[in-house]
Amino acid sequence: MKYISLMGATGSIGTQTLDVIRNHPEQFCLVAITVGKNIELTRKIISEFKPELVSVQNQDDYEKLKAEYGHSIRLSYGQNGLLEVAIYEKATILVNAVMGSVGLFPTLHAIQAGKTIALANKETLVTAGHLVMSAAEQHGVSILPVDSEHSAIFQCLQGEKDSEIDRLIITASGGSFRDKTREDLIGVTVEEALNHPNWSMGAKITIDSATMMNKGLEVIEAHWLFDIPFDKIDVVLHRESIIHSMVEFQDTSIKAQLGSPDMRVAIQYALSYPNRLPLPSGKRLNLEDIGKLNFEKMDYKRFHCLKLAYDAGRTGGSLPTVLNAANEAAVNAFLNKKIAFLQIDELIERALDRHNVIKHPDLDTIKEIDQETRVYINTLF
Amino acid sequence: MKYISLMGATGSIGTQTLDVIRNHPEQFCLVAITVGKNIELTRKIISEFKPELVSVQNQDDYEKLKAEYGHSIRLSYGQNGLLEVAIYEKATILVNAVMGSVGLFPTLHAIQAGKTIALANKETLVTAGHLVMSAAEQHGVSILPVDSEHSAIFQCLQGEKDSEIDRLIITASGGSFRDKTREDLIGVTVEEALNHPNWSMGAKITIDSATMMNKGLEVIEAHWLFDIPFDKIDVVLHRESIIHSMVEFQDTSIKAQLGSPDMRVAIQYALSYPNRLPLPSGKRLNLEDIGKLNFEKMDYKRFHCLKLAYDAGRTGGSLPTVLNAANEAAVNAFLNKKIAFLQIDELIERALDRHNVIKHPDLDTIKEIDQETRVYINTLF
Repeated sequence: MKYISLMGATGSIGTQTLDVIRNHPEQFCLVAITVGKNIELTRKIISEFKPELVSVQNQDDYEKLKAEYGHSIRLSYGQNGLLEVAIYEKATILVNAVMGSVGLFPTLHAIQAGKTIALANKETLVTAGHLVMSAAEQHGVSILPVDSEHSAIFQCLQGEKDSEIDRLIITASGGSFRDKTREDLIGVTVEEALNHPNWSMGAKITIDSATMMNKGLEVIEAHWLFDIPFDKIDVVLHRESIIHSMVEFQDTSIKAQLGSPDMRVAIQYALSYPNRLPLPSGKRLNLEDIGKLNFEKMDYKRFHCLKLAYDAGRTGGSLPTVLNAANEAAVNAFLNKKIAFLQIDELIERALDRHNVIKHPDLDTIKEIDQETRVYINTLF
Repeated sequence: MKYISLMGATGSIGTQTLDVIRNHPEQFCLVAITVGKNIELTRKIISEFKPELVSVQNQDDYEKLKAEYGHSIRLSYGQNGLLEVAIYEKATILVNAVMGSVGLFPTLHAIQAGKTIALANKETLVTAGHLVMSAAEQHGVSILPVDSEHSAIFQCLQGEKDSEIDRLIITASGGSFRDKTREDLIGVTVEEALNHPNWSMGAKITIDSATMMNKGLEVIEAHWLFDIPFDKIDVVLHRESIIHSMVEFQDTSIKAQLGSPDMRVAIQYALSYPNRLPLPSGKRLNLEDIGKLNFEKMDYKRFHCLKLAYDAGRTGGSLPTVLNAANEAAVNAFLNKKIAFLQIDELIERALDRHNVIKHPDLDTIKEIDQETRVYINTLF
């Protein structure tokens, strides 16, 4: 039995993680969760999974749930609650499915506590990859990817030697605006941007897909997860999202992982690793019905965010922290209709340009730079 | 250093195996070869690789080479020569790259002698899969696939558990006549049949590709190599031959192996396994340039040989021996312009229909059925 703590239980990855746990009660047991503000769904999760510890985002909701469940469940809230769930003693795996760099600190604590990390929160590695990976190495902890692209690469690497990798090839669907030119993007609405062609995901990641920053964050995440230099990580446009990513080896052989777009495959693989379990309601891929898989060269001018991410990743140090914080603040501003879509990469670039890179930032420096970047972005509109 | 015996050194797989050995003199040493009638090329191979043992097909060529090289090389010929090369003491690996069921007996002897088998000769497993695989198990010998499809599956299975396989998906280019209807095939010539769109291979296998019997033999070979029932082996038409084959697991995840069509990748993988070596002149796959990969449902009426092979495989016993021998004889008759292209499957079907299946044929029975089937086919035209 694997005992699971889940940060972000009411989100898109969170609810799909719950579905995986639901399908395999003989394998997985949910012991602790964090949630945001969706208290109605939280009640349902408590009723079905009976977790021992529940942490909500704010104190009001905490008081409310305390009155309802205080006799039977341990309750908590806020940043402290996140930490409690991350290091909950009974848990052996922490699924980090929260959005944004808020996932970093609890993840570092969970690593120190020896938990296996199933990581859906790419901002954690983008913001502080060097700290996370060296902590994982130091504590002998595995970081298992939950992103479909990194899960694909991880699956392709099973039974292979790292030294024989020649190149990672990350596929990109292109997001909701892939067939638009930059000129076409003037005046696009939040609602249009949220309409992703292949995947049903949270708002922030759907916008990141439309700007291609999501792929940029994935490139940086892959760099850290698989210890591969940026020159050996390519991105190819593959609109069907059927091949989730590939690895090329030094003998020119390429391995790919394919499937219908269903995040539960990657979530379940991270939870069941090194085994594979049946996915009862999973849709089997039928390539004959799909007929064609398309591949196109990535256009780094059209998708400027991807270029910014590669540049920040290559420079390294504190620059990826700025990239990530600026992106979170800019996407938030767009979602709140404070800025136009094309201003997202413009604002991020301004934040990157003004930053004096610190080579080996510690956790406090990262916190400061993250905060300061968000404040700066909010002065720009 | 791996010491290699190579059966079929002057053929298509043989010369590509030599190229792999040539590229990695620090890893591989050629110690023994069998050749057919190409004595000119044999002289070149002797001069370059200096094998210790050379066996030719017939006595005349043996005498000729004996006069030239008898002082420095051990020479042999015929069936005995094949056996000598197969069990040559210094060799640790036998590459079986001869054509047809003639490869069976030397392979069984090599297994008994504890050699690792790199198997390019699919007829060996089609004719006597139960004998070969049980001998391999008994002697603790690995059978490593050299066919690109089986190598692809083998690569996808690294780091995976056999019990978690849901399905093998073998890709088929469709061969030289894939865009023709059965009516179009009336009167096609040997020259047209030999014009394969993707792969440059020997004559017999190119005809087998055109009839789709090649894919049928591969299905039976896959059944034996990976111990998978026929209901879990699918064939999909994929005209680009870029995805060489796939494995679907019980979590719906699919792994595929891709690459430019280059047999050396599969040959080298079998020789270097479990490592991968660089392939200096290998062409890297560029999916952006290729643009599209196509997949179509297999038409078992159009490609009748594939249906015959599935049926023979499912029935098992001595029927696959008949399938293989009848196919070898019929293809030979077509290549010699004795029968028309569409008679190939017609003759094979007649041989299958008249055969009384023996459930667990031993080696002598297989030899007899093989011979008898060839004789029967030759009475039909």
